[in-house]
Amino acid sequence: MRHYLIASHGTLAQGFYDALNAIIGSKPEISIITAYVDNSEIKKLIEKKICLIGADDELIIMTDIFGGSVNNLCMEYLNRPNIHLIAGVNLALIISIVISHDEDTKSMIENCIEEAKKNVIYCNDLTEPKGYDDF
Amino acid sequence: MRHYLIASHGTLAQGFYDALNAIIGSKPEISIITAYVDNSEIKKLIEKKICLIGADDELIIMTDIFGGSVNNLCMEYLNRPNIHLIAGVNLALIISIVISHDEDTKSMIENCIEEAKKNVIYCNDLTEPKGYDDF
Repeated sequence: MRHYLIASHGTLAQGFYDALNAIIGSKPEISIITAYVDNSEIKKLIEKKICLIGADDELIIMTDIFGGSVNNLCMEYLNRPNIHLIAGVNLALIISIVISHDEDTKSMIENCIEEAKKNVIYCNDLTEPKGYDDF
Repeated sequence: MRHYLIASHGTLAQGFYDALNAIIGSKPEISIITAYVDNSEIKKLIEKKICLIGADDELIIMTDIFGGSVNNLCMEYLNRPNIHLIAGVNLALIISIVISHDEDTKSMIENCIEEAKKNVIYCNDLTEPKGYDDF
């Protein structure tokens, strides 16, 4: 079984979780860590989540930003089996990850990341008519 | 002057705003719309924000997901001058947009989007040793 953890600075993980619920409904296998909102030690929260998953389960951790303290802490757990870490997620990426049933997790994550990148869009470019310079 | 609006389903915009504050500090020119959290009509909130900016000002709207109802509503305002709309933002993109002093807004946004895409990272790929298949 796959478990999911959204971890961020402040309430961003809660915001992702709420938006996710609004769009696809609640999924009990998704947890969040909102770092620095209270005095909880982030490492302990991550380890608690890891301990709770079964030996044959997988955990996909999704963080707000590469190089941030939350992602840096999560990097320390990548030597453990069945832990996957994605940094810099947007909502489209989280949705595609949690609804995927693709059995090859690594390949699934890589595909979802490529698709999510296409969904970062400067919408003005979609509406501008082509000018004479284009000919 | 540039103004910024982060708009999302639910509390996600608030989460982005909080994380932004935690990383770069507060900026009064950033507003948020958390759609469907209460009964506020989203169109009225967007129009209120547009009315408040000066004739020579710019508004950069950043939404959670392309194709979502919030972004769809914002698309209706792209015929107005000085409004820019980006869909599918992540935290790195919002940070780079709001700290940029590049005067060419269109070019700045396009560059920030390309950079943000590079910051969506499958971190397991950074730690895996190269196997013989790579040679």
